[in-house]
Amino acid sequence: MTVKEARALALDYFNLAGITITPEEAARIEVAGFGLDDLENTGLEILTYVNTERCCAKEMVLFPNQTCPEHLHPPVDGNPGKEETFRCRFGRVYLYVEGETTANRKQNPPDGVYTVFHEIILNPGEQYTIYPWTKHWFKAGGEGAVISEFSTKSIDEADIFTDPRIRR
Amino acid sequence: MTVKEARALALDYFNLAGITITPEEAARIEVAGFGLDDLENTGLEILTYVNTERCCAKEMVLFPNQTCPEHLHPPVDGNPGKEETFRCRFGRVYLYVEGETTANRKQNPPDGVYTVFHEIILNPGEQYTIYPWTKHWFKAGGEGAVISEFSTKSIDEADIFTDPRIRR
Repeated sequence: MTVKEARALALDYFNLAGITITPEEAARIEVAGFGLDDLENTGLEILTYVNTERCCAKEMVLFPNQTCPEHLHPPVDGNPGKEETFRCRFGRVYLYVEGETTANRKQNPPDGVYTVFHEIILNPGEQYTIYPWTKHWFKAGGEGAVISEFSTKSIDEADIFTDPRIRR
Repeated sequence: MTVKEARALALDYFNLAGITITPEEAARIEVAGFGLDDLENTGLEILTYVNTERCCAKEMVLFPNQTCPEHLHPPVDGNPGKEETFRCRFGRVYLYVEGETTANRKQNPPDGVYTVFHEIILNPGEQYTIYPWTKHWFKAGGEGAVISEFSTKSIDEADIFTDPRIRR
C-alpha cells in the first residue's frame, strides 16, 4: 500500500465514522509507516486538528488489523510528557499498556519488539487515558478503527519506541 | 423546556452528528442554563469526556438559535487560563470574539449583556482556537449545532461572564 493509497483509505474511514473534515485537512492526513515499510501491518493514519504549546487533538485511523507500535512519551524540556486520551469513534481498538499481562488476550502484535500486554478493549464511545512514561501499543480489529485523541502538546520526535528499528 | 427534556434533545443531536456515547455518558449530559431559566434562548448542553489537570475534551450541543453567553477564561492559581479549540461537527456555529465588529453580522445575541461582535462562522469540519482572557459567545443557526471542544483544564466556576445576572 502506498502513502497515497493509505491517505485515500483513511478518508474513507473518516466518512464511515461520520467525521467531516475539510479538503485542506484531507490533503494533509499523515501516513506514519514508522520506517518499517509495512503499512498493512504497522502504521497509523493521523489528522492533527490542533497542536499548541498546551493542547493537542487528533483523529486517527487504523486499517483492519493495523498496529501502532509500542512506545512511550517521556518528559521533554521540563514538560512532564504527553498525556493522552483515546476515544474510539468507529470499529474496535485493542489497546495494550503496562500492567499485568492479560490471560487469553484477543490480539497479537505484528513482528517486532513488544513487551506490554495488559489489554483494554475500546468500542465506539469508550475511552482510556494514558499518562506519560507508560508503554503502550494499539491495534484495530477486523473492521479497522477511528480514534479521537485528546492530549497535551504532541512532540512525536520525542517518542521512545521499544523496537529499535522504528523511525518516527 | 425542562432540564430532562434538554438532555434528551441533546442526545438526539449527538445521534444526528453520528457521535456515539455510552449510556452512562447520556445520563450525565450537563444542561447549563446559566441561571437565566430560559433554555430556549440561553443555554448549552455539555458532555465532558475527560478533564484532568492538563487536558480537557467535551462535546457540546446548541439547540436551534440557542446562545452560550459571553464570557472569558481568566488565569487561575498560576495557570495561564483555559485555551480552547471549537470544532463544528454538525450544523453551523456563529462565534463572536474580541476584535473589530463585523459589519452586517449574521446573528444577534438574546437579551443580556454582550460586548464583542467579531464574527467567525464555523461549518462542519471548521474550527477556531480561543486563547485565555478573550471574551467570546456563540450561537447556533436554525439547525442547531454540535461542537467538539479541545482544551486545557476546564474550571467552569472560574469563568467570568459579562452579564452580571449569570450564575455558572
